[in-house]
Amino acid sequence: MTQYQIGLLIYPDVTQLDVTAPLQVFSMLHNTNIHLLWKTLEPIKDMGGFIITPTTTFDTCPQLDVICVPGGGMGQVDMMHDTQVLYFLKERAQTAKYITSVCTGSLILAAAGLLQGYKAACHWAFRENLGLMGVEVSTERVVIDKNRITGGGVTAGLDFALVVAAKLCGENTAKFIQLLLEYNPAPPFNAGSPEGAGEELVVMVKKSGSELIAASLEASKEAAQYN
Amino acid sequence: MTQYQIGLLIYPDVTQLDVTAPLQVFSMLHNTNIHLLWKTLEPIKDMGGFIITPTTTFDTCPQLDVICVPGGGMGQVDMMHDTQVLYFLKERAQTAKYITSVCTGSLILAAAGLLQGYKAACHWAFRENLGLMGVEVSTERVVIDKNRITGGGVTAGLDFALVVAAKLCGENTAKFIQLLLEYNPAPPFNAGSPEGAGEELVVMVKKSGSELIAASLEASKEAAQYN
Repeated sequence: MTQYQIGLLIYPDVTQLDVTAPLQVFSMLHNTNIHLLWKTLEPIKDMGGFIITPTTTFDTCPQLDVICVPGGGMGQVDMMHDTQVLYFLKERAQTAKYITSVCTGSLILAAAGLLQGYKAACHWAFRENLGLMGVEVSTERVVIDKNRITGGGVTAGLDFALVVAAKLCGENTAKFIQLLLEYNPAPPFNAGSPEGAGEELVVMVKKSGSELIAASLEASKEAAQYN
Repeated sequence: MTQYQIGLLIYPDVTQLDVTAPLQVFSMLHNTNIHLLWKTLEPIKDMGGFIITPTTTFDTCPQLDVICVPGGGMGQVDMMHDTQVLYFLKERAQTAKYITSVCTGSLILAAAGLLQGYKAACHWAFRENLGLMGVEVSTERVVIDKNRITGGGVTAGLDFALVVAAKLCGENTAKFIQLLLEYNPAPPFNAGSPEGAGEELVVMVKKSGSELIAASLEASKEAAQYN
């Protein structure tokens, strides 16, 4: 049986659920080795202060079948400027079977030049930024374009990971995991999309994230110049 | 503004998404202190080997407004027998505003005598076990019975946490978080419930978890005798 190497990038100020939701799905595949990748093995903290411990450094990372880049807070913008991270992603992408992201992780992939000419998803509040870098922005929750698989905002990581699981191990395995995780969602409100939530909440969320959205926009404009 | 103390129990062999999904929602509430609770501050490993670092020990834990107990693998059964854990839950429950669980965490709450006479949810494959302990088992995804709020299997933790967020901080705040997390789920398959997945997959999941289900059944029978 093929043993798949799956690498999830982590970094300071990442959004933990962008990582932990796919991780939960991937860790239920029998034939995978999962790597939480960072520059060192020192634990990092997510946006909310949750401690995540890397398992593998960039230097010791084996060849990857799947690369997954999660989104985050200001740390996500830092990653768009981090040449060590961008180089690592570019280099590993050359041999990866699937190059993937969740949420604003697609902005990092695009900053590494890995999504230009592809269709991709992003958190709804950051779609404009992705478009600036020459990526065809989609509003779909999970977007497959050749070997690029990208998910929308945060919780899309679950839908995304089941799609990746099906690609790697077949639909029946993905369904098995979906049943095991009882993924039969029933959100108590209809506020999970800008359309469902309505203008007032959209403005509130954009306002609360205005600093991050602006910083990410600047980074996207810069990245557009060299990609 | 009220500052809520939210404590999530963690333990070796916990299912990380049972913890990290609610944690993601709770960490987006402004007026909360969140505690990842265990006996010591030594990191533990979840079912899939993911390292989770406790933030607060039982001894140093402040009075809690919300207690949340997640499910897990064999570690979940261990917790049903762990007098230190059961005592901690019982003792803290006396002053908590909400006593809650995700997935098979309800079996631990029941083993602590905290769900008898209440209606509660559990992972679908473990509902019988919960019923044995004098709990009224519900097939709903999130169950509210007075100050007990319980979620179904693993991913129900998201729906559950939004319900708790609404209880603590109002519906508008919960909707704000739902939009921020773009929780507009679109599972690629209809296999998230036993009904949707069909008999063949149900048998496969039960078979793969047969040892755990049996051990948990034994623990439930024992707990039924002293609760």
